[in-house]
Amino acid sequence: MGDRMRDLPPVSGVITLLTDFGLSDPFVGVMTGVILSGFAEARVVDLCHGLRPQAIAEASFWLERCYAWFPRGTLHVVVVDPGVGSARRVLAAALGEHYFLLPDNGLLSAALLASPGARVLEVELSRLGLPPASATFHGRDVFAPLAARLASGQLEFESLGVPVEPVPSVLPRARQERGLVVGEVITVDRFGNLLTNLDEALARGSAGRVLVAGRSVPWRRTYADAAPGELLALINAFGVLEIAEREGNAERTLGVTRGAAVELRPVPGTPAA
Amino acid sequence: MGDRMRDLPPVSGVITLLTDFGLSDPFVGVMTGVILSGFAEARVVDLCHGLRPQAIAEASFWLERCYAWFPRGTLHVVVVDPGVGSARRVLAAALGEHYFLLPDNGLLSAALLASPGARVLEVELSRLGLPPASATFHGRDVFAPLAARLASGQLEFESLGVPVEPVPSVLPRARQERGLVVGEVITVDRFGNLLTNLDEALARGSAGRVLVAGRSVPWRRTYADAAPGELLALINAFGVLEIAEREGNAERTLGVTRGAAVELRPVPGTPAA
Amino acid sequence: MGDRMRDLPPVSGVITLLTDFGLSDPFVGVMTGVILSGFAEARVVDLCHGLRPQAIAEASFWLERCYAWFPRGTLHVVVVDPGVGSARRVLAAALGEHYFLLPDNGLLSAALLASPGARVLEVELSRLGLPPASATFHGRDVFAPLAARLASGQLEFESLGVPVEPVPSVLPRARQERGLVVGEVITVDRFGNLLTNLDEALARGSAGRVLVAGRSVPWRRTYADAAPGELLALINAFGVLEIAEREGNAERTLGVTRGAAVELRPVPGTPAA
Repeated sequence: MGDRMRDLPPVSGVITLLTDFGLSDPFVGVMTGVILSGFAEARVVDLCHGLRPQAIAEASFWLERCYAWFPRGTLHVVVVDPGVGSARRVLAAALGEHYFLLPDNGLLSAALLASPGARVLEVELSRLGLPPASATFHGRDVFAPLAARLASGQLEFESLGVPVEPVPSVLPRARQERGLVVGEVITVDRFGNLLTNLDEALARGSAGRVLVAGRSVPWRRTYADAAPGELLALINAFGVLEIAEREGNAERTLGVTRGAAVELRPVPGTPAA
Repeated sequence: MGDRMRDLPPVSGVITLLTDFGLSDPFVGVMTGVILSGFAEARVVDLCHGLRPQAIAEASFWLERCYAWFPRGTLHVVVVDPGVGSARRVLAAALGEHYFLLPDNGLLSAALLASPGARVLEVELSRLGLPPASATFHGRDVFAPLAARLASGQLEFESLGVPVEPVPSVLPRARQERGLVVGEVITVDRFGNLLTNLDEALARGSAGRVLVAGRSVPWRRTYADAAPGELLALINAFGVLEIAEREGNAERTLGVTRGAAVELRPVPGTPAA
Repeated sequence: MGDRMRDLPPVSGVITLLTDFGLSDPFVGVMTGVILSGFAEARVVDLCHGLRPQAIAEASFWLERCYAWFPRGTLHVVVVDPGVGSARRVLAAALGEHYFLLPDNGLLSAALLASPGARVLEVELSRLGLPPASATFHGRDVFAPLAARLASGQLEFESLGVPVEPVPSVLPRARQERGLVVGEVITVDRFGNLLTNLDEALARGSAGRVLVAGRSVPWRRTYADAAPGELLALINAFGVLEIAEREGNAERTLGVTRGAAVELRPVPGTPAA
């Protein structure tokens, strides 16, 4: 992370929310109310609230792959926070012309640590004059009021706190071993597609067979290149290897889910990756 | 469809999204981000994302019955798209003072083909300078950027492409046979109410008994006219025959769901419909 | 309820929606469309739509605890309405610098009846020139158009109807009996936390042991003060006694849900509450 002053983008007024709160309770609605109370012109976008409870790795996977699709100067607020009420720090970050507010539990650490221009601050909560926080809902009491002040320009990013190093990422990374590339299923989408941590560079480099749940799954460019009911592997819209079933549900058909190993094996007769 | 120039309404800046993406993944959030990146003033409304995966008929049913409740000049974006990645066309349509962007798989065809003033264009994607689309997420890569340009007025409807005929509707239609009217359950709402393709004209014309799952269900004007736990048939707020259970769940009680036959039988002693 | 003219706050343009409609059907989207058709500048916020069907008590619990987090002058529209189509009244209310539109079934009655400054009107629908309502969807046909007119300032609160007393609250209240305080689980959140009707004053006053499902659950200040997998009781962010399991699901672990009794017993040797 850079330690000298850098140019930060102007705030856009857009605030995204990414949480594991679900939509069966009014937690997201209340956070939105607090944001609008502090910043009436905010554009609040629900990035996703359906993450599994306390699934930091899945939240991290999606956050890394989604934030850049929003306008420059957007503030992304992430509340997947098993440590609420503990002494875990609250971070503010700037990365790739976007702003972030999130608990310091590894959510964005991979991207932040890999980007020389990224900036990470520990938010000095006691200095910012927030009302006392409840024991259980920092999304409402800490993140929402901070978001309103930062996204509206009432508070400057620089003024939020002091530079720190975030705790390490919790995202499992794919590895190469004995000529294989071994990754795993990170998340499963609504359609039963298995999304892995094998990214495009790894996957294309290997040009090998895809093995999952003891089966070899053929490569296709798109779902429509498979027959209905056929399993396929492709590089999806988020740049990772995905295992799908055309007009079906790969999770159910294969009987595997998050955490399942996915291998790329070199095709015999071709050079190993 | 008219082939001469017609007056088109001014765009309202409102964009609705109707998809089968669900809310457990950030797909809808990312589409919204792309729209705001191209058109900061857009008013994005989630019409519904809980449609069953690839359920074109249900999407079609709801789209036909919902679009007109939005402001004149609204753009409705529908992404229920089993053919993503194939050569299926992308359509832009204008109907009843509303605009539409949708894959050419029959989603709005019944209404478009029935409306002399409707206009349907094949969007000439290669001509519009969109960034290259991924294999799996045209909602983000095709529909959202097009929506931003059309709803903001950057692109005129007329300039999107050339007039075409959409592929036929996939919605099953009710039919009259041997004095009966026979329809089916098209969708089931959250309350377990069975919504059919028997519309008000058909249903009132027959004035007959409603038969479903081997049972005769009495007509009521409203839920409150039945006793708690009682089954009833009524014309619902969307103008179709609905079978409900007062303070209960008709789907569970009757043990039938989408696709189940629903008949209107003339009452003995009254003239057949 | 006051019967003389009081100062009412200016409308903020924010409209919240709290319903049991769920998000699997386009009911909420259509209500939003009607609001925007009547008031293009409305800021519509989904407070929650995941309430269980017709769960008036849970809706009431959340409404009381959430409305004040929104900007002054917000209009809160609540449609949890088993009596749709019956002669039940539609109420407009003003309470604590917020406005409300809701069916007269007890949803906000506890707060309204307890607040000397609250105002409650029966909306005189026949006088307001609304289009005819359908039998089944007053959210769209009554509440949404009224909300647009009231939140935009087209209609003054005073002009909506005549003062009435709302029907009584349906929320079960905790009681003191034989030295015990006895309450119950009112709702269960996405994380399996059990939220009760034992509020902070009652709970702290008793300083006793928490008993639920035959087990004694220790008090903690926050989730993080318990070990993973441990049950705990705390005063949550909404000011009520909550029973949780750190990084687990108390509902599943305890095998109890809404309606289960929760007791506070004086600790032997200390004075009874």
